Amino acid sequence: MKRRDVIKKGLIGAGSVAAATTISAPAIAAERIEITMVSTWPRDFPGLGTGAQRFAQRLSDMTDGRITVKYFAAGERVGAFDVFDEVASGNAQMFHGADYYFTGKHPGFGYFTTVPFGLTASEFNAWMRFAGGQELYDELSADFGLKGLICGNTGVQMGGFFRKEMRSAADFRGLKMRMPGLGGSVLAKMGASPVSLPGGQIYENLISGAIDATEWVGPWNDEIMKLYEAAKFYYYPGFHEPGASLSVQTNKKWWDSLSKSDQTIIEAAATTENQVMFSEYNAKNGAALNRLINEQGVQLRQFSEDTYDSFGEASDEVFADVQEHSDLARRIHQSFAAARQEIGSWNKISDIAYVTQRNRVLGL
Amino acid sequence: MKRRDVIKKGLIGAGSVAAATTISAPAIAAERIEITMVSTWPRDFPGLGTGAQRFAQRLSDMTDGRITVKYFAAGERVGAFDVFDEVASGNAQMFHGADYYFTGKHPGFGYFTTVPFGLTASEFNAWMRFAGGQELYDELSADFGLKGLICGNTGVQMGGFFRKEMRSAADFRGLKMRMPGLGGSVLAKMGASPVSLPGGQIYENLISGAIDATEWVGPWNDEIMKLYEAAKFYYYPGFHEPGASLSVQTNKKWWDSLSKSDQTIIEAAATTENQVMFSEYNAKNGAALNRLINEQGVQLRQFSEDTYDSFGEASDEVFADVQEHSDLARRIHQSFAAARQEIGSWNKISDIAYVTQRNRVLGL
Repeated sequence: MKRRDVIKKGLIGAGSVAAATTISAPAIAAERIEITMVSTWPRDFPGLGTGAQRFAQRLSDMTDGRITVKYFAAGERVGAFDVFDEVASGNAQMFHGADYYFTGKHPGFGYFTTVPFGLTASEFNAWMRFAGGQELYDELSADFGLKGLICGNTGVQMGGFFRKEMRSAADFRGLKMRMPGLGGSVLAKMGASPVSLPGGQIYENLISGAIDATEWVGPWNDEIMKLYEAAKFYYYPGFHEPGASLSVQTNKKWWDSLSKSDQTIIEAAATTENQVMFSEYNAKNGAALNRLINEQGVQLRQFSEDTYDSFGEASDEVFADVQEHSDLARRIHQSFAAARQEIGSWNKISDIAYVTQRNRVLGL
Repeated sequence: MKRRDVIKKGLIGAGSVAAATTISAPAIAAERIEITMVSTWPRDFPGLGTGAQRFAQRLSDMTDGRITVKYFAAGERVGAFDVFDEVASGNAQMFHGADYYFTGKHPGFGYFTTVPFGLTASEFNAWMRFAGGQELYDELSADFGLKGLICGNTGVQMGGFFRKEMRSAADFRGLKMRMPGLGGSVLAKMGASPVSLPGGQIYENLISGAIDATEWVGPWNDEIMKLYEAAKFYYYPGFHEPGASLSVQTNKKWWDSLSKSDQTIIEAAATTENQVMFSEYNAKNGAALNRLINEQGVQLRQFSEDTYDSFGEASDEVFADVQEHSDLARRIHQSFAAARQEIGSWNKISDIAYVTQRNRVLGL
């Protein structure tokens, strides 16, 4: 032990840590805030819903109840797809959801959840924080009276459940598949008939044969939906949602009225949930996939390179359409594409190269 | 617009958002907290140091200055490797650093930064939060009077700068290489002579020829060190630090004296920095790597499969040694190994499979 340490310990003494660092006066007074929060998820839906609820609880926990959140799951106050208007109008202060539900308002919103051939969760977070993403997200959201924060990620989604093997891109011609958003537009370019169905209607449509295939999220969420009862071929990797980022969108006028410290608290709570939810998907998907294979007879298949080439070509055609929408849509796409080039190239050298070698050696 | 929405908007009216949700009384009073924080990083060192400083600032920002942090970089109060004792003894309340500097206290600490053939940042976060990691970290830290939180990650590190090409595992025999910790032990099993040098002494030893090779972090940090002036072959992927997690270790007696809400604030600030720092490395490494190649004549090389096989065998030998230390070391290793098996297998199906196909199609 150093002499200096001995002296310090002598001066301060054991057990005095709290006393030495907590000064009892003057206290800080801060205003109470009550938040009405709506969401696009069913109550307690694993991952998406429980993550939104955990975020709401964390805001209260961080402030000893000074900030309270009245949380409404989808349908409890407004329907899932009505949350945008509910918050933009000021009827509620925030919603948790997926921005790509609102590409009808502006196609740029798709980029802030996920797009076909898009970014993984880690790449997306890097784009948002250090490569211009958040600034464009702020510009887009402000046009609708909103201010958004990223708050959760599902990771790379599975390619979906299919009744038959999908050996090449040609097998997509005429296929009736549930896939919303830009992913569905890509399938249409490949000759498929994409269908958009809310989660609660997927199972019955697949069982009845009204659709031939469907994607949902990943093994942990898909297992709950029992999709394997109607289609046994489970494909990876999904091209359409390589890291679905969820968000908290707030009413901008309300957000701007908050103190800087309360904004920082809400941002930290959202960033925490962003990491916790992604971690939960990563921790639970593997075991669920094993159960699907070993207990439900699911056949795991990988899309062929030829199929992936076609996904890529069709995605470029869809991106060309999106950029024609407006100057802002074009700038969002170009910022995204530059991030994909630079951060995606680094990913190849780092995580991809490492895990490929490690797993090969370990036989994983 | 739905009738219900019209009614709500009529009732609340424009501009009333803030008034409707901010209740001016009663105010909440909370105690001021002053924190002395030491660190293992030089002041303003990009990524590691600036991340620690950003975390400290965030604590103050989140509480409008109610929590203040007096931050001391390495050497400003105690030396980098003295921070553990400084916090364990209660002379300071927290340090930011890398736990694997303290494997001399207990080899288990290595697992909570990174180990050879270990977890990537995303895999590590999943292990810590949902597969038993944090519980073991708490048990280990408590044995030394500490309570730790993960707070930053460098991502997969590069394999290092070498004077000559490393074509096979045999090229490591007799090599004098700077590599601290368990990675160095792996090199020793392969016949190399590992050397541990602080960052400030690496350049001079490489230039003088006292060492043949060195690893540091990744392109963004390595470029600053000008290591390319002495060795041109730059290898990936590093087997030794596949996602170095940094931590905030707090004095446990002090931590336990905090209110639940202040603990939650500190946890959220640490988790936020965990994601922000990793994002910054991901955003900046790619451009730095391009500069190293195009402006400094660095030759990028990938370790061969044969070399990786040897890294894997030698890592297993080192892990066998570590587990002999104690029951806790064995339990930490086994929890880590189970997470690597399950979460690493899922990673192969998700991020790895997706990015491999996407980058192939895009020519990245």
